Amino acid sequence: MAEIPAGFEDLLEQTLYAHLATLGTDGAPQSSPMWFGWDGERLKFTHTNARVKFRNISAEPRVAISILDPTNPYRYLEVRGVVDQVDEDPTGSYIQELAHRYQAPWAGQSTGDEAQRVILYVRPTKFVSHG
Amino acid sequence: MAEIPAGFEDLLEQTLYAHLATLGTDGAPQSSPMWFGWDGERLKFTHTNARVKFRNISAEPRVAISILDPTNPYRYLEVRGVVDQVDEDPTGSYIQELAHRYQAPWAGQSTGDEAQRVILYVRPTKFVSHG
Repeated sequence: MAEIPAGFEDLLEQTLYAHLATLGTDGAPQSSPMWFGWDGERLKFTHTNARVKFRNISAEPRVAISILDPTNPYRYLEVRGVVDQVDEDPTGSYIQELAHRYQAPWAGQSTGDEAQRVILYVRPTKFVSHG
Repeated sequence: MAEIPAGFEDLLEQTLYAHLATLGTDGAPQSSPMWFGWDGERLKFTHTNARVKFRNISAEPRVAISILDPTNPYRYLEVRGVVDQVDEDPTGSYIQELAHRYQAPWAGQSTGDEAQRVILYVRPTKFVSHG
């Protein structure tokens, strides 16, 4: 496992936005901000299996993530990693966990897409810290 | 030119952080937050030609950018585009312009790497807006 740069653990543990870059099937990168969790070893994301990002990581599991400290924009963490597990989540348990954590106004209500929900686990292969 | 989604121009015009994804020479994506400017047609970034990101875009000019509205995290813009011009900037004029714009404490002082400074122009090929 890649070692987290000392003093940067908080960027994985706080309720922040991770910009997740995947590789499109055309070979070009794509990027979008995502809610995430950190279980001490892997970043966790949720998506539906109908989404482009899910098709992307199914074809190319290597991804990149950048997380900016909102209180100090000179401080950020780059993560490179690989999606090493995808779990179905037909009850939507993880989107609800994140919705509560990120205080979404709709937390506790159905997202309507539970049947297609998946949890993506990203194992970091490299960290680069700044600031 | 790709059309900016109506009502999202401000995310290109404000002093925000663009998470720029490039493709590494190993074929895996990389992501990092960057200062940027918008000239009405292209996003502008500055880097030095010694940096990995510069080598990346020299080999694969297709990039992706995501910009989150800091006042409304449900609102963000994804940009896919291509680096269609790289200018040398041996006086560091653009890093200074950005340093003033982003109110860097060192604005006006030499960055020490002016000789290697380049300006990257990214022409959007696709926008995806959310929120």
